[in-house]
Amino acid sequence: MSPPPARVVRFHWEDFPVGATRTFGAMPVTREATLAFAREFDPQPFHLDDEAAAMGLFGKLSASGWHSCAMAMRMMCDDYLLESSSLGSPGIDNLRWLKPVFPGDTLHMRYTVLEARTMKSRPGVGLVRLEWQMFNQQDEPVLSMEGWGMFGLRSAALGASA
Amino acid sequence: MSPPPARVVRFHWEDFPVGATRTFGAMPVTREATLAFAREFDPQPFHLDDEAAAMGLFGKLSASGWHSCAMAMRMMCDDYLLESSSLGSPGIDNLRWLKPVFPGDTLHMRYTVLEARTMKSRPGVGLVRLEWQMFNQQDEPVLSMEGWGMFGLRSAALGASA
Repeated sequence: MSPPPARVVRFHWEDFPVGATRTFGAMPVTREATLAFAREFDPQPFHLDDEAAAMGLFGKLSASGWHSCAMAMRMMCDDYLLESSSLGSPGIDNLRWLKPVFPGDTLHMRYTVLEARTMKSRPGVGLVRLEWQMFNQQDEPVLSMEGWGMFGLRSAALGASA
Repeated sequence: MSPPPARVVRFHWEDFPVGATRTFGAMPVTREATLAFAREFDPQPFHLDDEAAAMGLFGKLSASGWHSCAMAMRMMCDDYLLESSSLGSPGIDNLRWLKPVFPGDTLHMRYTVLEARTMKSRPGVGLVRLEWQMFNQQDEPVLSMEGWGMFGLRSAALGASA
């Protein structure tokens, strides 16, 4: 095993105030990745086969909705999560697949902070409720979801290192 | 391209009456698959690195929550979706990651039909609201979620072929 990479924590709970928004990501959706995900996790014909997809609701091959979620997660990781004091998430609400995602699309994300509060039961930890939206290259929303995230407080991190 | 596989449609909207339950799946969670998913979609240290995971909330390497969702989807496909008149899903509510999923676990699923109705706007199509739960080999629930699915009606399929 290689040693854990040194993590620089730039984003704490305090960096997610209510109303804050952030636009990020530029994820190309390749045909190869679309087919590989579908083969492993969602082998429905309209995600795997051009002819079957042509007869389906969207008229051409589209990515699994769970692949869209996974790509959203990767954009979050690359933009802020890997440099944050994130402690994970208990879950997601109101996940909506609004439009199909197609090979050849390029996706980006935007979050909006809906709520933020510190946890009485866990000193040094705060909760943030975020709405995420994913857009294609025409700025059409293709996915939206909401969820709580737990983040360490900057004040606690400063206290710990003092 | 190979031709679309011939699909046998065994499950229609009528096969999901309110209150119906079904237990299915036996998905082994390998270390290789856990790391491969994390590398591509969720490279947080506690999904990728034993030492970082040992210092984290769960004490050892765990699978990405989105990997759990993707494995749930595969079990649904293999058990009933690929042999159904499914027309897809608009989204998911109340997705909860209840316990960590670890390499070495073996997962299974259970669904319960919560609601079912035909669509006035789309003759021949019905909606089903399902709750899915995912369990590990100790029968501990590790994930739950709810969602609407659209399925073609058997009566419409019979009518079409008559």
